[in-house]
Amino acid sequence: MIVIMSPQATESDIEQVQQLLADRGYGVHLSRGVERTIIGAIGALDEEKALVAEQLDVLPAVERVVAILKPYKLVSREARAERSAVPVGNVEVGVQKLAVMAGPCSVESEQQLMECAEGVKEGGAAILRGGAFKPRTSPYDFQGLGEEGLRLLVAARERTGLPIVTEVRDVRQVPLVNEHADLLQIGARNMHNSDLLKEVGGCDKPVLLKRGFAATIEEWLKAAEYIAAAGNLNIILCERGIRTFDTTLRYTFDLSAIPVAQAETHLPVIADPSHASGQSEYVAPLAMGAVAAGADGLMIEVHPQPERALSDGPQSLTPTAFAKLMQQLRSVAAAVGRSM
Amino acid sequence: MIVIMSPQATESDIEQVQQLLADRGYGVHLSRGVERTIIGAIGALDEEKALVAEQLDVLPAVERVVAILKPYKLVSREARAERSAVPVGNVEVGVQKLAVMAGPCSVESEQQLMECAEGVKEGGAAILRGGAFKPRTSPYDFQGLGEEGLRLLVAARERTGLPIVTEVRDVRQVPLVNEHADLLQIGARNMHNSDLLKEVGGCDKPVLLKRGFAATIEEWLKAAEYIAAAGNLNIILCERGIRTFDTTLRYTFDLSAIPVAQAETHLPVIADPSHASGQSEYVAPLAMGAVAAGADGLMIEVHPQPERALSDGPQSLTPTAFAKLMQQLRSVAAAVGRSM
Amino acid sequence: MIVIMSPQATESDIEQVQQLLADRGYGVHLSRGVERTIIGAIGALDEEKALVAEQLDVLPAVERVVAILKPYKLVSREARAERSAVPVGNVEVGVQKLAVMAGPCSVESEQQLMECAEGVKEGGAAILRGGAFKPRTSPYDFQGLGEEGLRLLVAARERTGLPIVTEVRDVRQVPLVNEHADLLQIGARNMHNSDLLKEVGGCDKPVLLKRGFAATIEEWLKAAEYIAAAGNLNIILCERGIRTFDTTLRYTFDLSAIPVAQAETHLPVIADPSHASGQSEYVAPLAMGAVAAGADGLMIEVHPQPERALSDGPQSLTPTAFAKLMQQLRSVAAAVGRSM
Amino acid sequence: MIVIMSPQATESDIEQVQQLLADRGYGVHLSRGVERTIIGAIGALDEEKALVAEQLDVLPAVERVVAILKPYKLVSREARAERSAVPVGNVEVGVQKLAVMAGPCSVESEQQLMECAEGVKEGGAAILRGGAFKPRTSPYDFQGLGEEGLRLLVAARERTGLPIVTEVRDVRQVPLVNEHADLLQIGARNMHNSDLLKEVGGCDKPVLLKRGFAATIEEWLKAAEYIAAAGNLNIILCERGIRTFDTTLRYTFDLSAIPVAQAETHLPVIADPSHASGQSEYVAPLAMGAVAAGADGLMIEVHPQPERALSDGPQSLTPTAFAKLMQQLRSVAAAVGRSM
Repeated sequence: MIVIMSPQATESDIEQVQQLLADRGYGVHLSRGVERTIIGAIGALDEEKALVAEQLDVLPAVERVVAILKPYKLVSREARAERSAVPVGNVEVGVQKLAVMAGPCSVESEQQLMECAEGVKEGGAAILRGGAFKPRTSPYDFQGLGEEGLRLLVAARERTGLPIVTEVRDVRQVPLVNEHADLLQIGARNMHNSDLLKEVGGCDKPVLLKRGFAATIEEWLKAAEYIAAAGNLNIILCERGIRTFDTTLRYTFDLSAIPVAQAETHLPVIADPSHASGQSEYVAPLAMGAVAAGADGLMIEVHPQPERALSDGPQSLTPTAFAKLMQQLRSVAAAVGRSM
Repeated sequence: MIVIMSPQATESDIEQVQQLLADRGYGVHLSRGVERTIIGAIGALDEEKALVAEQLDVLPAVERVVAILKPYKLVSREARAERSAVPVGNVEVGVQKLAVMAGPCSVESEQQLMECAEGVKEGGAAILRGGAFKPRTSPYDFQGLGEEGLRLLVAARERTGLPIVTEVRDVRQVPLVNEHADLLQIGARNMHNSDLLKEVGGCDKPVLLKRGFAATIEEWLKAAEYIAAAGNLNIILCERGIRTFDTTLRYTFDLSAIPVAQAETHLPVIADPSHASGQSEYVAPLAMGAVAAGADGLMIEVHPQPERALSDGPQSLTPTAFAKLMQQLRSVAAAVGRSM
Repeated sequence: MIVIMSPQATESDIEQVQQLLADRGYGVHLSRGVERTIIGAIGALDEEKALVAEQLDVLPAVERVVAILKPYKLVSREARAERSAVPVGNVEVGVQKLAVMAGPCSVESEQQLMECAEGVKEGGAAILRGGAFKPRTSPYDFQGLGEEGLRLLVAARERTGLPIVTEVRDVRQVPLVNEHADLLQIGARNMHNSDLLKEVGGCDKPVLLKRGFAATIEEWLKAAEYIAAAGNLNIILCERGIRTFDTTLRYTFDLSAIPVAQAETHLPVIADPSHASGQSEYVAPLAMGAVAAGADGLMIEVHPQPERALSDGPQSLTPTAFAKLMQQLRSVAAAVGRSM
Repeated sequence: MIVIMSPQATESDIEQVQQLLADRGYGVHLSRGVERTIIGAIGALDEEKALVAEQLDVLPAVERVVAILKPYKLVSREARAERSAVPVGNVEVGVQKLAVMAGPCSVESEQQLMECAEGVKEGGAAILRGGAFKPRTSPYDFQGLGEEGLRLLVAARERTGLPIVTEVRDVRQVPLVNEHADLLQIGARNMHNSDLLKEVGGCDKPVLLKRGFAATIEEWLKAAEYIAAAGNLNIILCERGIRTFDTTLRYTFDLSAIPVAQAETHLPVIADPSHASGQSEYVAPLAMGAVAAGADGLMIEVHPQPERALSDGPQSLTPTAFAKLMQQLRSVAAAVGRSM
């Protein structure tokens, strides 16, 4: 931590900051420049750093406090230099093989889900996705089948052998979802929900953590740190588009978040081109781009009849379109030394 | 709802859309332009509109679907033409008098809270704020005193007579907070948490709904509609800054959100200049601007010793600075025909 | 400037950076922490700092370079502690009195301009605005009357006695506009046009510098520094709304930019609520808020018949609505100790 | 154009709008819904549509005006269904082959440029880039060699046979740059500079139009329409990153802009991963992603000694790193059916 004193700071202001740092157990290093005096703070407990920085920032004689270390540790590359692989049922996500998770936005009925599950298996998906508890921005929208949806997902796993991933939206649903699903999804709207992060941090199933659509990469990794700090290091990160001034598509897919999150953490990073684009015709180019940029997998929405879907129809691929995309993805994956 | 057909749409595409709308109970109105055919859909159930629009949008022959009505009803000016006043304990928020809510970001100790409560009462605050359950972006930050914080707030109400507002962060805390607080705050990070919105919608206490820092005004009003649809119309909206490309301050205070939300809904709209700016020296100009633009109240963070605060010290005013600001606010309020 | 070395940096990397800094004339100050080594660079020529920082940043052993000083000098509060007043014809902008600039978006005809000029004078405007050279996003939009518009503005000044402000859009127009106008406006789209900034920096007339709609406050002040560095310190800053994810109004008015720019520079700062909102019904609340927050003036679009305006009709006030707003603004100005 | 009347609109308001549209030559189509009356306007001159829409929007009885057609024509897919190829010297950009433009950010000296030009030629670049007139955000930054830089570029073309692309920043430089360069670059900061767009629209050389970092895709295509409307249809679009709330990298690379611009226009679309990322370690993943998503080419900054570059060193590749990237790009290009 570096404390930059304001040009008006007096000797006694500088002493006050040095004393304050020493009291909290920091080593102190003073550097007097032509226009500013700078105080370096060395060591002390990590947990307190953010608070001490904030409290110093209150002092009028302090112009600015600059953090030196990143605000996440367990998930960082400094904690673990090699890339991690996360087991999801019988599948491994990360390192070499690309994992494609596919299925309907919402589980709507047994027939819809089974048709979809068999379609995506045939196309080459490794994991089946499907929403049972849906977060919706309007109270008048379809809210999901709930527990019944979960039961259908389990049946689909039995039929196809594919592990299942589904969103857990509310702390009260965690035990139930943890019992049945192979991978617990935290949705973008819940990335900042620290209670939910702690609950899934206490689960034995791996967690898929979507980036909030207005979260910086640093905040996303801090959310992963919440899960890790609660004991669960089996975390897969998922970039799904951020909100920007351009509303041509539903969100702006942030391709760079993939290599940046891979450089900053040891966790696998996948992409969700369906939510990022919101339109089925743009799912393929974003999926191709993500794989070429190094993504460890994809999450893609597939529906047997998108024009009858109860949610996200416009961004859903048919099983046929999905199979065709998988074909193209295999070529790109091979070109970057990955297999599917 | 207006359906704009693509230039390639055939007669049979147009018929298909007309039939689909008729099947769902809509009146249909066809208009053939030089370059596009347009189909107007009249009537039918509100609840289904968004879904039908989405499903039509899937059809390749449909270029775009334009919604005519707003996606919120109970909170809209069309549902109630006059401005609503919301009772909070013995205080009314909205219509004529300006309500200032003030107090510490977090309840930290009995002494800190009492000192603060008496300070803000003296300065002229109408409602005492204080966080017991804190949402934090890092697992290493102070998470609040929880139930003990709530008990201290109740004691502060007894001592000062000020009604209390505190954040409820998790569905499991709702019964407890509803029992003790006079106003339930939904924080910015939870604005999209539909489970929590429904729970407070079932409470008998009024709700303060902060705007998510990446929520459009429309999404914010849809979140209010969630609460209203669950039975609770005592809602106060609060603008607290949005995330933009400019990171000079913590957030960008969206002044226009105040008059826009007042034009679109009948609900009172207040401003939180403390979170918007993140720096105590900018709280006053934003507060002054909000009142002059027509805000129905303010929420301001006050701490007896900001340099020792366990959260948000840099944006906290001392009781003395708060009292001075209240003095200036009274002049501006009077200039726009409001009293405090 | 502080250089933060990466955890992998070797002794020879550290020496290389120290040598590099010494070669450029910097004093060097080394501080070894537990997890990082930090090198402070003291002194040397301002002009080279940004470049040296960039070049150091290329080295793999350097994690990050932190600038200590702001990238603008002549316009900063450190260069001049008191607020500056800028003379515009016979009017002074800044310090105590509030200056309102009003008039049509585009000069369309003699009759329109004269009617407008007399209307805004009667309402209490201090300066007449009017566009002769219009920047438009579509080639099919009205591009302004050009030189003829300038001639009409001069005639309106003769008739009303109000100084005139008009936009200069292209370096080739600078001599002509400088000859006739009292205040040269640089529009938001040209804030990054360094050639144009240099040209008006060489003029003897004051400059009104609008903030680019995607410019950080720092970039805006760097643009002002361009003008100042070319010799012209008579600069008025104007906040006119920024682009954000919320498209309810045309732009998001950044109220905080006013006090921030006033804290960082000695220049007067005014607000343009017309472009910020894009809708006449929101001009008044934003104007009121800006004055209460401390703006040194306003720029407001007025048109005798907004429904016939050739540009920006939806955000234009009629002369009657303008006069009513001025009435309300006088109360708010008085409440914050300013006069109009 | 569809006019949505407000719920308060009277019969005479509706008649007024119908009359107004008829006077401007539109066919009129009335549709009365349960809660709103809607007026469709059919036909009439394109040039006036935006203005008529704006003027109708001023009327209090009009709630909203919805445009049906896109605001660009000459560059649209409706004007030309097949993809266009743009000749640049002896190279064709667009359709099948991928064109890579590479070279230094700024031309700094003969030696630097020649070394760089030979390096990128060897690596497989098709076109040499280099800045002679540099737009900089600070007046204290290196502003480019100007005319001398142009002379050096011409010499490098003679030596290597590669066509050259360079930025033209000011209308006064257009004749000179048009005389020497093979491709005129309009930089991101000038995308909204309509005077400059018109000037290059009158040139006989093709134009590379970078997207403004805060421009919507629609505004970018309207800027291309400016050039086309002035007579020059040889336009290459270039996505180079947009400004968002996330400042981890210099800009956020908008991958989706590539397929969207290709769907909306017939123009070739390339990507600039160097400016998008601002850091050399992220150039490769973004470049790979862009090619997999269908980009028609790339623009990449290369410098023989990035740590001595006078601008953009941190994002520059060495010739060796560039050659290695080209190797990888060839595999991805082949996987998507393109050659380099």
